[in-house]
Amino acid sequence: MPDYQPPYKHRQQSLIASLKNSEFDAIALNASPSQKYFTGLEFHLMERPIVLIIHSNGAMGIILPEFEKGKLEEVDYEIKVFTYSEEPSEWQDSFSQALNILDLQDASIGIEDTSIRFLELEFLRKAAPKSRIMNADSILTVGRELKDQNEIEAMQKAADIAEAALSATLPFIKIGLSEKEIAARLVQELLANGSDAELPFFPIIASGPNSANPHASISERKLVEGDLLLFDWGASVDGYFSDMTRTFTIGKIDDELEKVHALVVAANEVGKKMVAPGNACQDIDRAARKVIEDANYGQFFQTRTGHGLDLEVHEEPYIREGNLKILESGMTFTVEPGIYLPGRGGVRIEDDVLVTKEGMHSFTTFPRDLQVIE
Amino acid sequence: MPDYQPPYKHRQQSLIASLKNSEFDAIALNASPSQKYFTGLEFHLMERPIVLIIHSNGAMGIILPEFEKGKLEEVDYEIKVFTYSEEPSEWQDSFSQALNILDLQDASIGIEDTSIRFLELEFLRKAAPKSRIMNADSILTVGRELKDQNEIEAMQKAADIAEAALSATLPFIKIGLSEKEIAARLVQELLANGSDAELPFFPIIASGPNSANPHASISERKLVEGDLLLFDWGASVDGYFSDMTRTFTIGKIDDELEKVHALVVAANEVGKKMVAPGNACQDIDRAARKVIEDANYGQFFQTRTGHGLDLEVHEEPYIREGNLKILESGMTFTVEPGIYLPGRGGVRIEDDVLVTKEGMHSFTTFPRDLQVIE
Repeated sequence: MPDYQPPYKHRQQSLIASLKNSEFDAIALNASPSQKYFTGLEFHLMERPIVLIIHSNGAMGIILPEFEKGKLEEVDYEIKVFTYSEEPSEWQDSFSQALNILDLQDASIGIEDTSIRFLELEFLRKAAPKSRIMNADSILTVGRELKDQNEIEAMQKAADIAEAALSATLPFIKIGLSEKEIAARLVQELLANGSDAELPFFPIIASGPNSANPHASISERKLVEGDLLLFDWGASVDGYFSDMTRTFTIGKIDDELEKVHALVVAANEVGKKMVAPGNACQDIDRAARKVIEDANYGQFFQTRTGHGLDLEVHEEPYIREGNLKILESGMTFTVEPGIYLPGRGGVRIEDDVLVTKEGMHSFTTFPRDLQVIE
Repeated sequence: MPDYQPPYKHRQQSLIASLKNSEFDAIALNASPSQKYFTGLEFHLMERPIVLIIHSNGAMGIILPEFEKGKLEEVDYEIKVFTYSEEPSEWQDSFSQALNILDLQDASIGIEDTSIRFLELEFLRKAAPKSRIMNADSILTVGRELKDQNEIEAMQKAADIAEAALSATLPFIKIGLSEKEIAARLVQELLANGSDAELPFFPIIASGPNSANPHASISERKLVEGDLLLFDWGASVDGYFSDMTRTFTIGKIDDELEKVHALVVAANEVGKKMVAPGNACQDIDRAARKVIEDANYGQFFQTRTGHGLDLEVHEEPYIREGNLKILESGMTFTVEPGIYLPGRGGVRIEDDVLVTKEGMHSFTTFPRDLQVIE
């Protein structure tokens, strides 16, 4: 049993209360972290559509394959179940029946725009051609954004595991090793150190010029003297994540890259100093960015400074210019300035932070200063 | 460098040729295996939309964040690039510009319905309100479905690695171990035995009654005497996958479960015997299902018998009743009958097969007969 049993019924009731005061009659969620957050039900995202509906009148329904019904046996809340067989031509009927019984023939249905696909949208549209389907992110993140003590503990554990895994991996690094070999080792250490089996994302290991891509893919490139070596990785605990980045060097790097590393460390520190209730998201971005711009590297820092960290790795609160959202105690996000020099290499230093009543707690504490791997 | 460099330009030209003879003016793909198949470009699916457009007139374009532009430096084909900053209010402009320049203001745009999300769809719709967006799966899978020698070799390697990883994991299994501990060990062995770092899916380890869910999630449940123990796992090689299942027992199981195991082994064998050019997908499903139905377990086999295996784990050719698609040499898919007894346990035996001129080759060969783990 996981240590922490999430309060699903309470989460459903909160959402239903929000819906009553909104433009939405219901929420429709496909297989996703949000579906799991509200129900505890975990389904693979696949070519068979699985859609959860939560109505503002309190009714709930789920449309899913017959053979997945077994997962519903242990739920302790009421939910109408609409199943379909392996014959795709029958699937539309299940959707039509569900939207009919849930009284959503002419309604405003809120969805999550980064999750629901053309597949599910078409079944919903055909089941209720008169209904309006609109993005409901704003309602879905309320409540989730502010973490309770159990959630904070899971996130701290996820950060501790990520750091222990890195510590266990570093002694293994040497010239000639490939990015892929390093990633394989880091994944083994994440699991051995207690991460849940489903990692938040597969680690990014980027060396030399590859580190100049903020979202590099793992390659077969082998480490050489003078490389920057960037780790972007995280662990998962009861569905909560860590997501951190540290950048090392292989032997001696050139003076400019060394200077860039120190700048990013400074930007990370200055950014985190702005984390406090009442400040806006953009204040953190501005503070971190100013350090880099003042040193004339602004053009090499084109990403935002951070993103929310919750059941998904990227979500609100986004730490960027123009985001006037005010920080509240209980919010969690990353602070991850970087400088990326095309063809040469990039440096990013990423911490996971919690807004506290007093200001800020950093879940991640692994040393940020330049460490040389010989 | 990977051993196999896919022929991206050739794949683009084939798609463009298919488009000319279709109802579609262009294809729009978000970050996905298909996007990678046609371009070699690999992006994370995230809250920032990344859309590739391939026009029937031969033009190509991609809309992506400014900071991801670095990944385009090494491509050897022509592609128009439309970038946007971290300010979401600017993203629509990039889409509008792209659809304008690519002459898609009033066009039929094909998408992949299991991949593209509300997020990308809305940007496309607002950029070209007069255009029609429709599912284009049928066009996108042409060509991909028939494997060449390099692809077949990668799939064989992925099967060999999966089997080696299982062999290395089995000696470690004992009563009291949790499903999660077994999964962690299996993942370590997959990587150590040569799987690419990005696994096709996280292994499913389902024990005792959990195995009665065809898509069980990994739990903390510990093995006890009399359990069925089901492994569903795969490896990845240069973007090609294996996906196999074997079911073991922990000590002595009851007679009915033993009978069920033998039935599933027989159904798997009979199903594979129907794999040959000229037969229809449903012939395999019918043959395998008949074995189980004749023994009066038909109601406990509610899934289809298999699915295509390509750059994605689930896609055409689906092996199910009603699918009259004719098998051709070069197609690859799974054969995976199962019997699932609610509350007691399930048995599934899954092989990966290739249609050959002569009939069938099974990439996977790990023994299927009941093996007892003491």
